[in-house]
Amino acid sequence: MNVTQLHDKFEKIRANKLFESFVIAVIVISALLVGAKTYDMPPSFASVTLILDWFISLFFLTEISIRFLAEPNKRYFFKSFWNWFDTLIVLISLIPADDAELAVVARLVRVFRVLRMISIIPELRVLLVSLVKALPQLGYVMLLMFIIFYIYAAIGSTLFEQINPVLWGDITISLLTLFRIMTFEDWTDVMYETQEVYSLSWIFYLTFIFFTAFAFLNMVIGIVVNVMEQESAKARKLEEEASNEPTMHDLMDELVRLREKVEQQSNGQR
Amino acid sequence: MNVTQLHDKFEKIRANKLFESFVIAVIVISALLVGAKTYDMPPSFASVTLILDWFISLFFLTEISIRFLAEPNKRYFFKSFWNWFDTLIVLISLIPADDAELAVVARLVRVFRVLRMISIIPELRVLLVSLVKALPQLGYVMLLMFIIFYIYAAIGSTLFEQINPVLWGDITISLLTLFRIMTFEDWTDVMYETQEVYSLSWIFYLTFIFFTAFAFLNMVIGIVVNVMEQESAKARKLEEEASNEPTMHDLMDELVRLREKVEQQSNGQR
Amino acid sequence: MNVTQLHDKFEKIRANKLFESFVIAVIVISALLVGAKTYDMPPSFASVTLILDWFISLFFLTEISIRFLAEPNKRYFFKSFWNWFDTLIVLISLIPADDAELAVVARLVRVFRVLRMISIIPELRVLLVSLVKALPQLGYVMLLMFIIFYIYAAIGSTLFEQINPVLWGDITISLLTLFRIMTFEDWTDVMYETQEVYSLSWIFYLTFIFFTAFAFLNMVIGIVVNVMEQESAKARKLEEEASNEPTMHDLMDELVRLREKVEQQSNGQR
Amino acid sequence: MNVTQLHDKFEKIRANKLFESFVIAVIVISALLVGAKTYDMPPSFASVTLILDWFISLFFLTEISIRFLAEPNKRYFFKSFWNWFDTLIVLISLIPADDAELAVVARLVRVFRVLRMISIIPELRVLLVSLVKALPQLGYVMLLMFIIFYIYAAIGSTLFEQINPVLWGDITISLLTLFRIMTFEDWTDVMYETQEVYSLSWIFYLTFIFFTAFAFLNMVIGIVVNVMEQESAKARKLEEEASNEPTMHDLMDELVRLREKVEQQSNGQR
Repeated sequence: MNVTQLHDKFEKIRANKLFESFVIAVIVISALLVGAKTYDMPPSFASVTLILDWFISLFFLTEISIRFLAEPNKRYFFKSFWNWFDTLIVLISLIPADDAELAVVARLVRVFRVLRMISIIPELRVLLVSLVKALPQLGYVMLLMFIIFYIYAAIGSTLFEQINPVLWGDITISLLTLFRIMTFEDWTDVMYETQEVYSLSWIFYLTFIFFTAFAFLNMVIGIVVNVMEQESAKARKLEEEASNEPTMHDLMDELVRLREKVEQQSNGQR
Repeated sequence: MNVTQLHDKFEKIRANKLFESFVIAVIVISALLVGAKTYDMPPSFASVTLILDWFISLFFLTEISIRFLAEPNKRYFFKSFWNWFDTLIVLISLIPADDAELAVVARLVRVFRVLRMISIIPELRVLLVSLVKALPQLGYVMLLMFIIFYIYAAIGSTLFEQINPVLWGDITISLLTLFRIMTFEDWTDVMYETQEVYSLSWIFYLTFIFFTAFAFLNMVIGIVVNVMEQESAKARKLEEEASNEPTMHDLMDELVRLREKVEQQSNGQR
Repeated sequence: MNVTQLHDKFEKIRANKLFESFVIAVIVISALLVGAKTYDMPPSFASVTLILDWFISLFFLTEISIRFLAEPNKRYFFKSFWNWFDTLIVLISLIPADDAELAVVARLVRVFRVLRMISIIPELRVLLVSLVKALPQLGYVMLLMFIIFYIYAAIGSTLFEQINPVLWGDITISLLTLFRIMTFEDWTDVMYETQEVYSLSWIFYLTFIFFTAFAFLNMVIGIVVNVMEQESAKARKLEEEASNEPTMHDLMDELVRLREKVEQQSNGQR
Repeated sequence: MNVTQLHDKFEKIRANKLFESFVIAVIVISALLVGAKTYDMPPSFASVTLILDWFISLFFLTEISIRFLAEPNKRYFFKSFWNWFDTLIVLISLIPADDAELAVVARLVRVFRVLRMISIIPELRVLLVSLVKALPQLGYVMLLMFIIFYIYAAIGSTLFEQINPVLWGDITISLLTLFRIMTFEDWTDVMYETQEVYSLSWIFYLTFIFFTAFAFLNMVIGIVVNVMEQESAKARKLEEEASNEPTMHDLMDELVRLREKVEQQSNGQR
């Protein structure tokens, strides 16, 4: 069996529908395993999970190797973000973790195998890519929001630090407290506390809520308008392609040709 | 009186507007009865509700029998989801429940009679069907959201189990806690507790909130865009039908016919 | 001075811009007076407010009389909802309330004078009318939502009454508790309490939140789509009126007339 | 070196890309400095921040002077809102604050330097301007909302003052409490307290929530519709300019000209 034959065989395996379903099944099992480990379980079950874990690790390693070997152009393989993504997850979860200290880390790393669900299902990949693509358009609104947060956090930690250092100790803690206020989570408790010293501090909270709510609303509308435009552009394109209707230009051309004919005829008569 | 006459009679009853109003009235009464039973009431009233209960059960049984008998093609009757729905509700609430233990179950079953309100009012049926139809299109966003939830739940129950087993005991409890955090319900209390051990755990909560909020926003926008498209498609169709305007194609055809005429004429002159 | 002259004079007063501004000023003063009374104040100020109160009552009575007398057709006056609205508010606030017991009622009644702000400013009237008009279109979604609430309230007060009668005592209290859960206000406290008895009761809460959130979302989308359609219909109408563009029909008519001409001509040649 | 030369030099500096980047860098440093001061720091670091502070103040003063001197028409300089904005921030933060009492004020004033981030980045300026422009269109909805708040606050402080003066003491406090209720922050605690005296007071809270939610929804929809209209108007304009398609008018004109030709020809034959 030479290299080309081997290559064709790998290619066949990768393209196999059954193989793909099997990969998804293994990912689901690895996800269930991650969940099962959070329950208390008898030692016998623990050793079963250990074996399963190694089987999954090996299987993932094999699968990525097949995909790599099936790729005619090896350079092309590493140009895909999702290949990098899968390889990284597989390699990291290969790190042995017999050490008691590292056991938690090893378990956490195995959690990320669930993310392979996204890389294996094309629809989820498309969804994620479109989500990530929407982000930079919101860049400036998010910068504006951060500036609002930063200014209020600086004011808050300057004025309220003496009142409650747990909430307003420094600017990082203040940012977290402001995020809490933005989610309306017990924000009045925070306010009532500072109002005992500065009775006008409600102005601080209310203006902050108004500004962030307004900026947030703006962000949401920005996304909606964006999505709508993309959709309507897509719809218009589809419609044009489907209908094959003559355009106004076509009509005009036809009319002009007709007039020329009539004029020509009229000249011919004279 | 033969079978056909009987059939016609049932058909007449079913189609009767008054009969329909009476059915709705009985459903409303059964709903009120369900509500009334949640109040403390004198024994005399209890026996009245018992009698009313049996009358409603009998009436519903009669009504569904009439509808079944009025149907010319019996097979067609069971093809309708709503007939199955009604039959099931009526049959279940016929189960006797004199037993003290089953009394609660019997009361609960009677609650579902209120659902017949949906099957009897066509507008509500249409509404529910359109709601259910919108769900599968959201399938992948919901799968993505579940993956996010699952990964965070696995991380949460691995790291925070020792801190508060009531909130992070196993992956099911963690999923519930994460849903609570998503609704912003006292999420800072959960966070402050874990921050005492892992001071960086705010990253866990903030990224979770961002991811789920973003996915949720995406879902809402998905629904809005979908509804909008359906509406605009409906509007366009209606418009086209209403106006009977000649299309660009019609105009073009007319123009071409005209040119042929002129050309023909021009040839005739020569 | 005869009746017609008097009538003309009233008509003039009503149409006077200065008079209208004065009416608005008095309404604003009456609103401020209502607010001022909620503060503790010295007795001297109390007597001032009493006098002001009577002046405002008298002024409003005079104003509505002028509007009534200025109306040429008296029957037309009572056909306007806003005239009824104003007359009612004015008449009710005339009821004397020297009695200590009725003092609170009298103060409350005076609060509603602030509502005259809506009837006097046309833009607010338009806004309110459009809000009220949007309601019936949401009728069926709200009915569906009420059915969901009712079923869950009946289940809740059947199962959880023993656990906490303050929250689930009867169906009315349960409806209030469910509304609280819908606003996510400490809903986990309610859930954790019932979960101690029925460990699966989280299903009750989660399905309720999903159903109501979904129905609510549907309602919001319903309003948005509605508003959008009205706006686009308005925009299309405006556009058509503004442009005066020939329609496809006009073009077709012109083309047909042209062809007839050519055919006629062609016949004339033979 | 005469005045014109100096002027040209300043103009050059202002337009320099490197200078602009340096200004942004200084603003970022001043923002970080504001944040750093909220942490406890050794005295040596405090003196460093003092020096940095003076350097930033001087730099900002120099920068605004250059921009002023580079302006050919000095009157034009003060017509820009953003120049006023920058000058004000710079001048205020020049006020010396060696006094212990004023130290807090001085620190707060320096916080506002972060706002210069908005004035220096054109995209943020555009964003802020468009946010501010959207506000007046919402004027009447906000007035309506304030009237709702005012009436409920007046009722609340009349009825509930005796129950809890901390929440319902006077109309200002009541307005704050109502805002809290609108954000659903522990609103049931407020309600349960008043329900012990007035058992029907849930009507007060539920109607308030419905009214404000409805008005708020209306406001959001108002903004969305507005933004959509602007976007579609922009899109239509762009499309028209890009396509250069003949309009219906052009087609009609061409048709009429053609008919005239045919008629003329037909007359010529006779």
